[in-house]
Amino acid sequence: MSVGTIFGVGLGPGDPDLMSVRADRLLRGAQHVAYFRKAGRTGQARKIVNGMIPDDATEFPMEYPVTTEIPVSDPRYNELLAGFYEDCTARLKALSDQGQNVVVLCEGDPFFYGSFMHLYSRLRDEAPVEVVPAITGMSGAWTATGDPITWGDDVLTVLVGTLPEPVLAERMTQTDALVVMKIGRNIDKVKRALTSAGLYDRAWIVEYAQMPNQTVTKLSEACDGITPYFSIIIVHGQGRRP
Amino acid sequence: MSVGTIFGVGLGPGDPDLMSVRADRLLRGAQHVAYFRKAGRTGQARKIVNGMIPDDATEFPMEYPVTTEIPVSDPRYNELLAGFYEDCTARLKALSDQGQNVVVLCEGDPFFYGSFMHLYSRLRDEAPVEVVPAITGMSGAWTATGDPITWGDDVLTVLVGTLPEPVLAERMTQTDALVVMKIGRNIDKVKRALTSAGLYDRAWIVEYAQMPNQTVTKLSEACDGITPYFSIIIVHGQGRRP
Repeated sequence: MSVGTIFGVGLGPGDPDLMSVRADRLLRGAQHVAYFRKAGRTGQARKIVNGMIPDDATEFPMEYPVTTEIPVSDPRYNELLAGFYEDCTARLKALSDQGQNVVVLCEGDPFFYGSFMHLYSRLRDEAPVEVVPAITGMSGAWTATGDPITWGDDVLTVLVGTLPEPVLAERMTQTDALVVMKIGRNIDKVKRALTSAGLYDRAWIVEYAQMPNQTVTKLSEACDGITPYFSIIIVHGQGRRP
Repeated sequence: MSVGTIFGVGLGPGDPDLMSVRADRLLRGAQHVAYFRKAGRTGQARKIVNGMIPDDATEFPMEYPVTTEIPVSDPRYNELLAGFYEDCTARLKALSDQGQNVVVLCEGDPFFYGSFMHLYSRLRDEAPVEVVPAITGMSGAWTATGDPITWGDDVLTVLVGTLPEPVLAERMTQTDALVVMKIGRNIDKVKRALTSAGLYDRAWIVEYAQMPNQTVTKLSEACDGITPYFSIIIVHGQGRRP
């Protein structure tokens, strides 16, 4: 019996119409569909593909044992997640060993800050794995702003809001165009860093890029308070343009 | 009579199977298809969609008056290109005014160092323009290496090989993960900058990512000489992973 392939399929920013032709085909022909979610939730990846999974496919929700209840710096966080990824890996490998193909849903692009990477690094020497790249969430966000992100020789820096404030501020001063991801409860820290780098007035915040509830707002005009984890801050480059 | 829409359609890294469902549909239903190319060449964007353009669609090749014959720093370069973009804009607007929709083919993602941006900035207040984001060439390249580009809190920096060597070297020391685009005849300068930043031994070069002639090589093992303009250098981040 031949072994099955585990496909890490990028879904893009959130609009099914922006999935790749390959991702669309793999999903509509799937035998097994796996996806991460927070316990008790539908899961963002699963929501995106609603109505696209074949009726006879089996679903395999992989529920995080922890998300924000324990700080990332706590050793228990790593232990819990490592054990969880091992369990998921074993289940995916068992399906592959039985000759079954599995589609693992990945928000955005699988290799760009993706959760699937933690399964991929454990599975790659154990079973056939194929990764389908996708439109990144940040592409979805800068397209939503209606302005190009980089021109000519512009440097683009991508930062995550989980970095310490001095690191954020320093890196922000060293770039032409900027993307900040993983905002959520880091929003106030990110705002202070942008201000100290002189970029606050040029920053936009995009929530739910390319989804029906998308919002695009100048950061200086956005309401205070916690913003979704998946919101993205954009500062456009100003480079050479004939 | 209603006006037509000009669609800036990202094609992704080069495999038509990696175009978005929306891009695929727009292209297969196109009335007019416009694309940039060097005079006398087929053009990379046009090649990607070979066989997908409807038989009754009209094609509008937009031929650069200059590519590498004049240095970018020469004022004539800007003058020639600005005039060219004005001409293209006028022709696209005329089609829109006649109620015709036009698909403009864009390699990679239209808003990420894309030539379409020069038409977009001139057209956006003159005619309805819609931009369809796409998988970036760099996503295609890092996926091709078989290793994720960013983990945890990794900083990603995107540089273009056209930057001065000291700028390249300095920015390279300030990042965890790195992408260098627009390599071509800048390859030796980029190699020296990578060496001075201590990244040379971790660098990969991807030529023709996601195309049939794709190559993925450790930079230290790559042959000397000029590499294609669209080749991409990748240094993977090493961030936190449970």
